[in-house]
Amino acid sequence: MADGEQRRIVPVILSGGSGMRLWPLSRLGRPKQFLTLAGDHSLLQQTALRASDPTLFAPPIVVSGEAQGDAVEAQLAEAGVAPALLILEPAARNTAPAIALAALASEPDDLLLILPSDHHVKDEAAFRAAMATARGAAEEGWLVTFGLRPERPETGYGYIRAGTEIAPGTRRAEAFVEKPDLATAQRYVAGGDHLWNSGMFLMRAGAYLNALRTHAPYLLPAVEAAMAGATREGARLLPQAQSFARAPSQSVDHAVMEKHDRVAVVPASIGWSDIGSWEALHGVLGKDEDDNVLTGDVVAIDSHGSLIRTDGPVVAAIGVEDLIVVATERSVLIVPRAQSQRVQEAVQALIRRGAKPPPELLGDAG
Amino acid sequence: MADGEQRRIVPVILSGGSGMRLWPLSRLGRPKQFLTLAGDHSLLQQTALRASDPTLFAPPIVVSGEAQGDAVEAQLAEAGVAPALLILEPAARNTAPAIALAALASEPDDLLLILPSDHHVKDEAAFRAAMATARGAAEEGWLVTFGLRPERPETGYGYIRAGTEIAPGTRRAEAFVEKPDLATAQRYVAGGDHLWNSGMFLMRAGAYLNALRTHAPYLLPAVEAAMAGATREGARLLPQAQSFARAPSQSVDHAVMEKHDRVAVVPASIGWSDIGSWEALHGVLGKDEDDNVLTGDVVAIDSHGSLIRTDGPVVAAIGVEDLIVVATERSVLIVPRAQSQRVQEAVQALIRRGAKPPPELLGDAG
Repeated sequence: MADGEQRRIVPVILSGGSGMRLWPLSRLGRPKQFLTLAGDHSLLQQTALRASDPTLFAPPIVVSGEAQGDAVEAQLAEAGVAPALLILEPAARNTAPAIALAALASEPDDLLLILPSDHHVKDEAAFRAAMATARGAAEEGWLVTFGLRPERPETGYGYIRAGTEIAPGTRRAEAFVEKPDLATAQRYVAGGDHLWNSGMFLMRAGAYLNALRTHAPYLLPAVEAAMAGATREGARLLPQAQSFARAPSQSVDHAVMEKHDRVAVVPASIGWSDIGSWEALHGVLGKDEDDNVLTGDVVAIDSHGSLIRTDGPVVAAIGVEDLIVVATERSVLIVPRAQSQRVQEAVQALIRRGAKPPPELLGDAG
Repeated sequence: MADGEQRRIVPVILSGGSGMRLWPLSRLGRPKQFLTLAGDHSLLQQTALRASDPTLFAPPIVVSGEAQGDAVEAQLAEAGVAPALLILEPAARNTAPAIALAALASEPDDLLLILPSDHHVKDEAAFRAAMATARGAAEEGWLVTFGLRPERPETGYGYIRAGTEIAPGTRRAEAFVEKPDLATAQRYVAGGDHLWNSGMFLMRAGAYLNALRTHAPYLLPAVEAAMAGATREGARLLPQAQSFARAPSQSVDHAVMEKHDRVAVVPASIGWSDIGSWEALHGVLGKDEDDNVLTGDVVAIDSHGSLIRTDGPVVAAIGVEDLIVVATERSVLIVPRAQSQRVQEAVQALIRRGAKPPPELLGDAG
C-alpha cells in the first residue's frame, strides 16, 4: 500500500439467513435476501451495491450456505459485482463462525465491514458517513458496531447501551441488551443512550480473531481446521465440512461483543430496516395516496393502509383497511398489518398439518 | 287423470341467470346455480331435488340459456333428475318470456310451480306446506306468489303487500313494491303486511298466458311464434330464434304481477335465501365455533366471523375478523362481510382495465 493511501474496506456480506417472516414470498428455497422487495434489486444485490464504490471498498467476501451458492453468484453477476471470495458454509453455524471464515481468509490488518444481506438502508450517504466515523477506532483495534438511533420503542430488536465517547462520534459499547419489553423499550427511546443493534460491524480481521480466541476458545480452532482443509474452485471456497460442523452455533454478539472490553458503537441514523415483517416492508416502501403499497395484478377499491402483492392470481380488494395480502400461485396470506409478525404461526401450522416441508413452503421447486 | 286424483304440479325451473355477485366463484361461463355452495349439490340440483317427490310433482320443465344446455343436462343427470323438457332460450329475455315458453309447452290446466334455480331453501317441509296452501287459489285461476316473512329490513329485495284473505293462508297481493330504503324496510318489517318477493309462483299455465295476453300484448305473440317454429331434439326444445328475439325483455313481476287483479300471496317462512352476496352465503352455511365458514385448503388462526374459501392456492388467514376471502387459481377476492355486495365494483374494474371479458371473469376456459 502506498504511503498516505487508505487501506480499502473489505465488505463481508452474510447471506446465510433462511427466515420465513415474509412467507409466502420468502420460502425455504428462497430466503428474504434474494427477494426484490423495493426498487430493481434484491436485498442481497442492494447490500453489495451499497458497498461497491471502488475508492472506498475492495471487492466483497460473501458467506453463504452451500445450497445457495449458485443463486448468490447469479444475483451478484446480475448486479455487476464480482466477489473476491464466495465462502460456502457446509452447515449453518450462525454469525460468529461465518465471520471467522472471512477473517481467516483476510490479512490481519484488513478492515472488515460485516453486512447482513437482507437489510434495507434508505440513506446511503449517512451509511457511508458512519463507516468513515467508525474507521479510526476500528484501525486502533476496536470492534466497532453501528448503533441505530431508535425510531420507535421496538421490542423485536436487541439494543446497545452507548457509554463515554472514545473518539469523535464513537462511544464505548457498555452493554448489549436482549429484546426488551415495551415499557423498557419506551424508557430506552426516551433516554437516548440505547441504540438498535444493527448487526453491522467494522473491525480489523486480526482484532476479531483475537477476541474470538479469548472469548470463544472452542469456536476458532474448528473454523481454522475447516479453512486449513478448504478447497477452492474459482472464487468459491468450500471449508472442510467435518471440521466446520464442530464449531458451535453462536451469534457474534453472544460469542464476542457482549464479552469483549474494546467494543465501540457509532450512533447513526441511516434509514435502516431489517424488513423483519410485512408491516416493516409496508413502512419502508413508497405508498400511494391511499397509503397502500400495491404490487402485481391488484385491483384495490376503497382500500387504505394496506400492502397487497401478488405474483400469481389477480387480487381484488374492496374496502379493506391496514391489511397485508400476499398471493403467490401456491399460497395466499391475509393478516392485519399490526399482526404481521404472526406469519410464523401460519408457517408452523402448514408444517404441522402436512408433509414436511409442504410445497407451500418450498415454492415452485416443491 | 283418475277421478279424485290430484293433478301433479309441474316444476318450472328458471336457470337463465348469469350474475357475478359471487365472483370469483361465479363467472361468465359458470353462473351461481351451477355452484356447489352448501351440501353436496349445486343450487340447480337442490332446486330440482326440492320438487322431485313423484307423488306431488311431475318431471320438471327447465328453461336455460342455449350455451348452458350441456351443463344443465349434466347436472340434472348427476342428481338423478330427468326433465320432461329442457327449453333452451336463444337469447336472454328475463322471466316473463321464459315462463311463457314453459306455459305454452304445457296443458292449460297444468299447475306450474315457477322456481328460480339459484335460491337456497332450508326448511323443505315448510316449502311443501306452502305449495299445498297455494294450490287451491292456483286451481281457481289465481296467480299465486310466495311471500317470505322478512327476517330483517332488507333493502336489496322487492316486497309484496298482503291484503285480505281469499282462502286459508292465502291473501290478495295488493301491491308489488320496489326495493325500499332502510327506513321504509324497517316499517315493512314492523308492520307485518309486507313480505319478500321470492320469485316463486304457482299458477295454471292458461291463467298465466291469459294474464300475459291482457297485460303484455306484444310479448306473447313473439313467444308463440318462437314455439311454433321450435325444433325438438330428445328432451331439448329450441325456440325459433328470430321470433324469440322480438319478445321484450321483461320480468314476470313487471309484465303481469304488478298489473293483474287476481294475484294472491301465500305468506311463508321456509328459511329462504337468494344467496345474493358472499355475506348471504355466510349467513346460510353452518359455522364453526369461531363463526367461520372455511372451505378448501385454508389455515385460519385467531380468525372469526369470516368466510374463507379456496379452490386453488392454500389460504392462510391470521387475526382476521368478519372478512370474505375467496380464492381460485386465477383470482382472489378480499372484502369485509358487510361490504360484500360491492363485488360488482371489482368485476367492473376488471372489465374496464383489460380485454373484455378478461380471463379472471371467464375462468378456466378464458
